[in-house]
Amino acid sequence: MLWGGRFDKKLDKKAMSFSSSLNFDKILIFEDIEGSIAHAEMLRSVGLISQEETDKITEGLSRIKDEFKGGSWNPSEEEFEDIHSAVEYRLKELTGETAGKLHTGRSRNDQVATDMRLWIKKAATGLKGKNRELQKRLVETASENVNTLMPGYTHLQRAQPISFAFHLLAYVEMLERDVNRLDFVYYESDLLPLGSGALAGSTLPLARELIVSKLGFSGITANALDAISDRDFLLDFLNAVNLGMMHLSRLAEEIVLWSSAEWKFVLLSDEYTTGSSLMPQKKNPDMAELIRGKVGRVYGNYTTLATTLKALPLSYNRDLQEDKEPVFDSFNTYYTSIGIMESMIATMKINKDRFVEELKHDFILATDLADWLVLKGVPFRESHSIVGKVVSYCEKANKYFIDLSIDELKKIDERFDETALECFDINTSLERKKTFGSPNPEMVKEQIAGWKSKLF
Amino acid sequence: MLWGGRFDKKLDKKAMSFSSSLNFDKILIFEDIEGSIAHAEMLRSVGLISQEETDKITEGLSRIKDEFKGGSWNPSEEEFEDIHSAVEYRLKELTGETAGKLHTGRSRNDQVATDMRLWIKKAATGLKGKNRELQKRLVETASENVNTLMPGYTHLQRAQPISFAFHLLAYVEMLERDVNRLDFVYYESDLLPLGSGALAGSTLPLARELIVSKLGFSGITANALDAISDRDFLLDFLNAVNLGMMHLSRLAEEIVLWSSAEWKFVLLSDEYTTGSSLMPQKKNPDMAELIRGKVGRVYGNYTTLATTLKALPLSYNRDLQEDKEPVFDSFNTYYTSIGIMESMIATMKINKDRFVEELKHDFILATDLADWLVLKGVPFRESHSIVGKVVSYCEKANKYFIDLSIDELKKIDERFDETALECFDINTSLERKKTFGSPNPEMVKEQIAGWKSKLF
Amino acid sequence: MLWGGRFDKKLDKKAMSFSSSLNFDKILIFEDIEGSIAHAEMLRSVGLISQEETDKITEGLSRIKDEFKGGSWNPSEEEFEDIHSAVEYRLKELTGETAGKLHTGRSRNDQVATDMRLWIKKAATGLKGKNRELQKRLVETASENVNTLMPGYTHLQRAQPISFAFHLLAYVEMLERDVNRLDFVYYESDLLPLGSGALAGSTLPLARELIVSKLGFSGITANALDAISDRDFLLDFLNAVNLGMMHLSRLAEEIVLWSSAEWKFVLLSDEYTTGSSLMPQKKNPDMAELIRGKVGRVYGNYTTLATTLKALPLSYNRDLQEDKEPVFDSFNTYYTSIGIMESMIATMKINKDRFVEELKHDFILATDLADWLVLKGVPFRESHSIVGKVVSYCEKANKYFIDLSIDELKKIDERFDETALECFDINTSLERKKTFGSPNPEMVKEQIAGWKSKLF
Amino acid sequence: MLWGGRFDKKLDKKAMSFSSSLNFDKILIFEDIEGSIAHAEMLRSVGLISQEETDKITEGLSRIKDEFKGGSWNPSEEEFEDIHSAVEYRLKELTGETAGKLHTGRSRNDQVATDMRLWIKKAATGLKGKNRELQKRLVETASENVNTLMPGYTHLQRAQPISFAFHLLAYVEMLERDVNRLDFVYYESDLLPLGSGALAGSTLPLARELIVSKLGFSGITANALDAISDRDFLLDFLNAVNLGMMHLSRLAEEIVLWSSAEWKFVLLSDEYTTGSSLMPQKKNPDMAELIRGKVGRVYGNYTTLATTLKALPLSYNRDLQEDKEPVFDSFNTYYTSIGIMESMIATMKINKDRFVEELKHDFILATDLADWLVLKGVPFRESHSIVGKVVSYCEKANKYFIDLSIDELKKIDERFDETALECFDINTSLERKKTFGSPNPEMVKEQIAGWKSKLF
Repeated sequence: MLWGGRFDKKLDKKAMSFSSSLNFDKILIFEDIEGSIAHAEMLRSVGLISQEETDKITEGLSRIKDEFKGGSWNPSEEEFEDIHSAVEYRLKELTGETAGKLHTGRSRNDQVATDMRLWIKKAATGLKGKNRELQKRLVETASENVNTLMPGYTHLQRAQPISFAFHLLAYVEMLERDVNRLDFVYYESDLLPLGSGALAGSTLPLARELIVSKLGFSGITANALDAISDRDFLLDFLNAVNLGMMHLSRLAEEIVLWSSAEWKFVLLSDEYTTGSSLMPQKKNPDMAELIRGKVGRVYGNYTTLATTLKALPLSYNRDLQEDKEPVFDSFNTYYTSIGIMESMIATMKINKDRFVEELKHDFILATDLADWLVLKGVPFRESHSIVGKVVSYCEKANKYFIDLSIDELKKIDERFDETALECFDINTSLERKKTFGSPNPEMVKEQIAGWKSKLF
Repeated sequence: MLWGGRFDKKLDKKAMSFSSSLNFDKILIFEDIEGSIAHAEMLRSVGLISQEETDKITEGLSRIKDEFKGGSWNPSEEEFEDIHSAVEYRLKELTGETAGKLHTGRSRNDQVATDMRLWIKKAATGLKGKNRELQKRLVETASENVNTLMPGYTHLQRAQPISFAFHLLAYVEMLERDVNRLDFVYYESDLLPLGSGALAGSTLPLARELIVSKLGFSGITANALDAISDRDFLLDFLNAVNLGMMHLSRLAEEIVLWSSAEWKFVLLSDEYTTGSSLMPQKKNPDMAELIRGKVGRVYGNYTTLATTLKALPLSYNRDLQEDKEPVFDSFNTYYTSIGIMESMIATMKINKDRFVEELKHDFILATDLADWLVLKGVPFRESHSIVGKVVSYCEKANKYFIDLSIDELKKIDERFDETALECFDINTSLERKKTFGSPNPEMVKEQIAGWKSKLF
Repeated sequence: MLWGGRFDKKLDKKAMSFSSSLNFDKILIFEDIEGSIAHAEMLRSVGLISQEETDKITEGLSRIKDEFKGGSWNPSEEEFEDIHSAVEYRLKELTGETAGKLHTGRSRNDQVATDMRLWIKKAATGLKGKNRELQKRLVETASENVNTLMPGYTHLQRAQPISFAFHLLAYVEMLERDVNRLDFVYYESDLLPLGSGALAGSTLPLARELIVSKLGFSGITANALDAISDRDFLLDFLNAVNLGMMHLSRLAEEIVLWSSAEWKFVLLSDEYTTGSSLMPQKKNPDMAELIRGKVGRVYGNYTTLATTLKALPLSYNRDLQEDKEPVFDSFNTYYTSIGIMESMIATMKINKDRFVEELKHDFILATDLADWLVLKGVPFRESHSIVGKVVSYCEKANKYFIDLSIDELKKIDERFDETALECFDINTSLERKKTFGSPNPEMVKEQIAGWKSKLF
Repeated sequence: MLWGGRFDKKLDKKAMSFSSSLNFDKILIFEDIEGSIAHAEMLRSVGLISQEETDKITEGLSRIKDEFKGGSWNPSEEEFEDIHSAVEYRLKELTGETAGKLHTGRSRNDQVATDMRLWIKKAATGLKGKNRELQKRLVETASENVNTLMPGYTHLQRAQPISFAFHLLAYVEMLERDVNRLDFVYYESDLLPLGSGALAGSTLPLARELIVSKLGFSGITANALDAISDRDFLLDFLNAVNLGMMHLSRLAEEIVLWSSAEWKFVLLSDEYTTGSSLMPQKKNPDMAELIRGKVGRVYGNYTTLATTLKALPLSYNRDLQEDKEPVFDSFNTYYTSIGIMESMIATMKINKDRFVEELKHDFILATDLADWLVLKGVPFRESHSIVGKVVSYCEKANKYFIDLSIDELKKIDERFDETALECFDINTSLERKKTFGSPNPEMVKEQIAGWKSKLF
């Protein structure tokens, strides 16, 4: 134990196990050693330890890293309360009393805060990379489906024709915001808390600014009390994961729908589906369902940390130890889910002709007809109402738009002329779109080109 | 794999690891084997398998249980997607083709639902027992503190004098409700879903009612579709844990306050406190802080499952696999926290005289004085206002109630007489309480006696 | 203001508005008056107020109730901090000083707790009634659809044939659990806190037991400190609403799916759909979407109260005022949603033949074929695998089960005989189900009869 | 109704009330009119409506704004489903058929998205301003308390001496991050969705870029489908409120503690405290408690929207209507809470000498003594242990540090000399701090100066 000089009794065994964080903070060992080496070098710079001591410490720490990687040293929960004390204990075994100098001017409070910031910066960078991979995949699939017609839905009702490419690009936009959010988390984590001590800095002449560049931070925290009790960057990280997974859950929901017998739009690869232990004919979109289900888990992690932080008086309270598991779990869930989603999309087949015939026998081009009237000078509200009558007429006559003659149209409103019938051509419907951000194939191609030059 | 006869490609390795639940559902092995034995015996009863096959299956399953307990068999995530397929695979190794008959008329859907209900019933019973232990401890400590005076707080302001026993009994009441809630969860889980098949029962003549008593259920679920997609009992379980941990968090918060230099009311044992890596004088109530912090974690688990269940169409969806980890984690957290709380209270010391002198120099008996006036016929609102004036007078005169003479009182309101001064005696203040549920020592003793006869 | 005798400055105006609860606790006026009348009568019974005073108070309170109902008296947030002080103020206007006696031995703490318990008991009863109405509707619709064939889904993949009646009965089961949960909340709320004072009872001889029957409670709370800080019954209420709304969200999701162009299974009435401001052909299932969306809102309300209760030291803290809005909002949302759901189902049309032809051209009866083999003595795992081969064969031959001859079957496994072909008859598939809880029409009819005799 | 040409029956009255958003989206009227005017001008620019029509529309809209402000027009929930249709209806009353041209090429989907983005940008700006005010107040109070000694706490145990100024500056840092987060939300909301139509843009030649500058956006959304279903900026807004309120809840918790009889560190003004209806002596920190309690409410709002967004298929679904109330409620709660906190701090009195004597009789300077040893070359771990022994010695001898002689120190470790005793001077303890970010008064003054030049 790093403390205890004054205690008569040892920590109860159950309490030790209850309070130990080793099982989950072990993941921080690399950041911990990185931070300790930088700290040791700073201590040497300001003369608090000698060059020789520094060398012993940094060599010892490097060796511990290797031992851990190689598996020859693996601390256990029964012995240590956290990875920080485990590393220091091992360092003492390797270097003797010198190890006792490493913690000079440092507290576990600023040490842990530093480790977590280093870790989050790596995590945000890693997740950004995964999002970029998924964006690439979506853009790739989009570029093969610029003319794949499908109904665009609102209220899960067919609304207007779009292309599958256009649909996928909506997700590329979402992922771009997810990347921006991760950038914000990175920026927020990019200040060094080391040198804040337990809560109030130190009477030792520590040169905090020397550590900043060693560890790749962009600056230094300004108030020790805040620095060691701040977990904003973690809650913002969990929020970023929430939104990212929420986006994936929407895509996953759509993949489940598209794979159904009712939609038959997408065929998932065997590699990303499972069968049933009872029903031999089943081919289940389990991966999509799991991604959708796991949004619950990351939401839960956010709730966990937000609840824990509520109304905590300054500065460090042991409650804050509960910050780690939700963060690590949300990272793992999100990181893996992006990868699975990417592979699932890469291997799925699109039933490109699925909707072509069916959309002809639909009223999905009603808006186009209303716009036609608008261009003839009919106020939109009136044209909306006229088209409503056309739909009603068709329903009663058991017809679809393409079955209508110009005479039938004229009977409803005499302002209709032959060119109105062009609105009923599903094949040219996308080309007729005029606005930036629409599924017009030319615009979609341009956007794909833009994304490709940005991402590839 | 239990399925796959029709698949051309195997599940992708990453997808396998993403979707495997073995790491966390391994905990269900005992319920799984218990359920399988009961299922096999039912199959024999209705003639679907022979006595000999049944014996082979049940012996095989018993051996697997022993192997698992002894550590000689421990399935890994790389090989199996869940504990159910792992057990069946091992059974096949042990008994050959006979193993293939066990899953007759059963789906993993009803199998998992059965396992979880068996597990929850055990968990609820276990937690009830732990709550009873904590109740006993609180009653024990209360019985030693019937006359330990302390301020009762509202708004964390001293309001009226109470006893520490009375304060602790408030928590005994909370725990009693927690026990009732666990009973409700038990009752809700006590119906057997086995025999519901994948979602629609079976064309095989399964005798579901035969399994009920074998597994100790009180009845049978009535609709197969509902039976395999119902997770109400799990969400209710998580709610029960939320309220239980919320209660513990309130007590933990108080222990943190009472241990502070400002309160100095309670001294925690060394066994349940920790020191600081930087500040040698510290004695931190880490266990109380962790219990308080962990309420976040169980709240998070509830959010997780509630989110996952939102808007899922019937019946089973793979999302439901995400039900397990939050349930197991909430159980562990709650179970351990109760135990730690119990030990912490068992070993802490109460500073019994902490408040006696201080409460004399306070206005904490103001309500008693108002009540005195009420008994003299003064309307409560008026008496409240008169006592307000007495407090104001004291503050200006730099006095406390016990410093007041009857003349000073009479100057404020002439209805005061000598007996009013009795209201200022802190030592008899508790005895003066008249209502059921008050800190009157006689009533508190009676309640303690009642709890003892109920709990011990 | 009910307090303030000792304060030099009045509460700041912004602070007044920030802390006033009148806008939302006005809803408690009936419970408040009911509780006050019972309290006054008890005060008279124990001689703390006279019969005449009691009469004045109860008449005054009854008049206030009438004034409020009639709209002639409506207190505003600018004047009063809550409904309790507004009522007492008005009572003073009506009865003079006598009003000042009503609050004898009572605190707003036990007063509010009593009001809320009375309210929750009514709310639980009201919601139970609404759930019963929805159950009746579902049973009614089920009774008209015992033979309406539809695919039962797992993973949103067609799994086995079921009937629409069977599907609806799954929801009747869910609602039955919701009713049980409301009963538990009622039971938990059924203890009277009045007489607990601010936190520690009273030195006045209040007879709490006299109030119990007047207000229809089943008993009395046992510890004053707990009684005034206990909000368990509210959090349990919010949990009950969560599960109820979660069930509705699942049904709502299905209605959205069934109404889609892809499913075409259900046609919602115009009265419960809306159109589009842009697309004249749209008919959107907005009510179902709103019910589904509103599950978020009630989940949020649970989070709100759970968070607020975390780690609050005993006893009353003003934070607890935040208990009301989430409770009232969840009640309103749930109550209205059940009603809308009931009406939507009552007015929707079922496309009864939607799936009949389509299910013939499917592999949805694969399990039945596997069961056929099991009855011939083939181990289930083997039969599952054989049926997998049959499905594969069909897919390659571009056939469905009904296209198969017995010779084709025999080529795959020679144990097949003519009777196996009976498994491919979709029309008799439900009758072949043998297990309790299955969609066998006879069993479904029996359950409907059971529900009818219970509900109607 | 804006739709309905084709519907036979009108929306059911209950359904109308269930689905109407007018009561809460009325707040958007100014953004709605602002957006409509910009839209009309764009329509004119591209020739879809005439200058005259544009004038009629914009004049009509301006008049509606005035009517609404003046109270002469106030649409009700019984008549309209939302503010957008109410405004258009009124416009028709004022301008006749011309009103029907306003909605040309526009859908409620892109209209609402535009309104919400305009609103959020104002909200974020407003909240930033409030945070700046609170920062100023904290800096002001800090500047008066640079030498106000208080214990710095970890685990709510006294750890090291700090100043009240230093403590307050920790909150200034938190608020600075809150401002940065609001900036991110502003940036994210700063793209115009108008012109996205219902989901797929328009066949009309709308010039979206013309609207951008009119409404003060920085750019244009790129994908129509995403633009109308994106609620990221709202969830990020709710996250920003969560963190801001979480920070306030920590400060509120401390104010509650500081106001307690145990701490007696802070005296709140009568204007921000309340009394008790039963206990005349009470002075309760209700405002601080309410702020603390209200963190639950904003957390709940986040849960609400996050849940609602889970797994929604593209694009617009009516569920999304549920986005507004949580956003408006979180804004109001946060905005008001900051203001109340600011006023509460402005009017509270600090008991500046509260801790001076008490900290002399404490071991709070233990770390300084350990650092003294470190500067003598003793490894930190050893020095930590030596100081532990000094504390133990004191406890046994019933002494504090300031009672120790150099001889007593030397007996524990002979490396101690006279200068070690300087570590026990509480008055100079802050000056001895050497690190950036510590409570050293010179550094604190510098930071205050820095904040002042930034904020004032």
